Amino acid sequence: MSVLRNRGCALARARLSANLCLNSTVAGTLRHKSSTKLGKEAGEGDFAVCQERIFSGIQPTGIPHIGNYAGAISNWVRLQKKFSGNILLSIVDLHSITLPQDRDQLWQNILDMTACLLACGIEPEKTILFQQSLVPLHSELAWILGCLCSVPRLQRLPQWKEKKSSVKEPSVGLLTYPILQAADILLYKSTLVPVGEDQTQHIELTRDLARAFNRLHGTVFPECKMLSGEVPKIRSLRNPTSKMSKSEANSKSRIDLLDSPEVILEKCRKAVTDFTSEISYDPEGRPGVSNLIEIHMAMADLTEDEIVEESFLLAEDTGMYKMRLAGIIAESLAPVRERVIAYRKDPDFLTDVLKEGAAKASLIAEETMEDVRRLVGFR
Amino acid sequence: MSVLRNRGCALARARLSANLCLNSTVAGTLRHKSSTKLGKEAGEGDFAVCQERIFSGIQPTGIPHIGNYAGAISNWVRLQKKFSGNILLSIVDLHSITLPQDRDQLWQNILDMTACLLACGIEPEKTILFQQSLVPLHSELAWILGCLCSVPRLQRLPQWKEKKSSVKEPSVGLLTYPILQAADILLYKSTLVPVGEDQTQHIELTRDLARAFNRLHGTVFPECKMLSGEVPKIRSLRNPTSKMSKSEANSKSRIDLLDSPEVILEKCRKAVTDFTSEISYDPEGRPGVSNLIEIHMAMADLTEDEIVEESFLLAEDTGMYKMRLAGIIAESLAPVRERVIAYRKDPDFLTDVLKEGAAKASLIAEETMEDVRRLVGFR
Repeated sequence: MSVLRNRGCALARARLSANLCLNSTVAGTLRHKSSTKLGKEAGEGDFAVCQERIFSGIQPTGIPHIGNYAGAISNWVRLQKKFSGNILLSIVDLHSITLPQDRDQLWQNILDMTACLLACGIEPEKTILFQQSLVPLHSELAWILGCLCSVPRLQRLPQWKEKKSSVKEPSVGLLTYPILQAADILLYKSTLVPVGEDQTQHIELTRDLARAFNRLHGTVFPECKMLSGEVPKIRSLRNPTSKMSKSEANSKSRIDLLDSPEVILEKCRKAVTDFTSEISYDPEGRPGVSNLIEIHMAMADLTEDEIVEESFLLAEDTGMYKMRLAGIIAESLAPVRERVIAYRKDPDFLTDVLKEGAAKASLIAEETMEDVRRLVGFR
Repeated sequence: MSVLRNRGCALARARLSANLCLNSTVAGTLRHKSSTKLGKEAGEGDFAVCQERIFSGIQPTGIPHIGNYAGAISNWVRLQKKFSGNILLSIVDLHSITLPQDRDQLWQNILDMTACLLACGIEPEKTILFQQSLVPLHSELAWILGCLCSVPRLQRLPQWKEKKSSVKEPSVGLLTYPILQAADILLYKSTLVPVGEDQTQHIELTRDLARAFNRLHGTVFPECKMLSGEVPKIRSLRNPTSKMSKSEANSKSRIDLLDSPEVILEKCRKAVTDFTSEISYDPEGRPGVSNLIEIHMAMADLTEDEIVEESFLLAEDTGMYKMRLAGIIAESLAPVRERVIAYRKDPDFLTDVLKEGAAKASLIAEETMEDVRRLVGFR
């Protein structure tokens, strides 16, 4: 039955993705409030109802950049339409403390991330948006799963090998966070997890732990699947061969959702390109200008060919194109930015959103844990 | 101030222990219901009030044996008098799953342990007696503390070195349980922890984690101290050089609180002694008969000299002494056994005791976690 169900959903997803590619633009997403139009655009009523539950986590890193937006966030906004009421999005603050954090900055980051998610179109009526640490059952399930996972299993994960060498005395949190991640997913009996390829082994661990629990104690957990879609890979404006990233020291390498039109113009002007003046799309040979075209595609409803042709008709050189692109980005981001600024002024509202989300999440989590505790022998 | 406070308490403890040695018998403890008599015996009103909070955990291993009784349990009953309202006793089921457990057996063991603790004199009005897994904040604080503890720090603990070599692929729970233990203690801002010498390094870890948290985030946790007292070390009836233990395969090696007079007689008769027929106390030279005298001391209000003299006057050989001792043990345990049997018939009552205890514990835990979350930056 689960095979049939998943096959049905795969079909629905294929159709969803076909429909949504028309709509995968910031501008499109920003129109999310006008649900009639969106409903029509996305063909919302066409899809079969799937009994899937989606879980995703995002670290509270503060204001996201357009790479986060075009990659993860706009994907969630799309998924929210399809899986309304069955999608959870957690601001995973328990994960963020595996590395040192400044207290006030962390709290501000949690609020800022919430503001940005709402501004980008996450609707708390459709997506259970919540703060992880408000649901202590995440940690409880992680403890129980940790008793089913061997230490060598964690030590073999590539993320651990990489992270342990970067710090002198790696913390227990750095070793065990994949178990917390598994608990995040399993606590809601999630079936689909939208993550990048770098998370393959963590999802495999989650599936292993689900299987181990089900075999040992009784079936509680579905075996979740990765939901990896075609998402634009926006790269650094300063090093267009690497991903746009918060961790790159130079803030000119990325455009944040709160950047003013002036700042966006400045960052676009300084974007690293090459010595060829015309615009062409060639990610291998011309990574800089191709990255700008990728950004353009993510911001407007155009293909790379359309963008290149438009630029040719306008007889633009790289400099002129950068100026025009900056305007397009600024215009696309303007309503998001406006909403982020408004939400930021109301931290109490943001706190309430996170708390109400946590209350909804807790209802599901408590139900799962009732089964878990009974099957483990805690009652 | 904390130094002064602890000095005051040390004095009080010394007086407490001086008074209580008159009362450290099963028979004495079994009279706990008669509070007037006990109050007088223990000189309850004499002690200065200390602002201490005591935490202790016991694994749900089912019906305890007289070694558990004479060691840990009767100590808690004594502490309960002194620290009434400030003592927590947790049945640590989250710890028990670091090793495989049978579901039904685990739940029965939790209920049996509760029944025995109540039967031995733990009073829920004085001691917050609760099931650990009913308070998910234990796991939450463990996660937070795990982010402050390095993996090598845990790997250096002797218990880990010992345990990891005994299983093929040791679980994460086996590695990290000392952090959960620290969370158990710190969640209630406990100041005194009655544990054996084998727990010294775990208490040191708890103190280290408290210090690390306080230094990094702000002072929340007191640095707890071990409360190690003189407790009788009851040894195996079959191998009188090792501790009486649940893990010894031969059930004749121990006397359980539920053993019938016939079973107690049989176990005493079969107790390993030596070829000398008279009774003398010489733990090094005559471990078997000396262990019987230790048990006798724990069951009756007598010194070793008194026991030896009494036996001399009765012209007993070892066989006769074993028979008499069996009667003394059976008589001492009779009221406990009766109460355990009665409590076991009412699992709903036992469940309610654990739940009500968890509700009380949660109030304290929630207060601590409010501070912790705020200082970490979760709100």
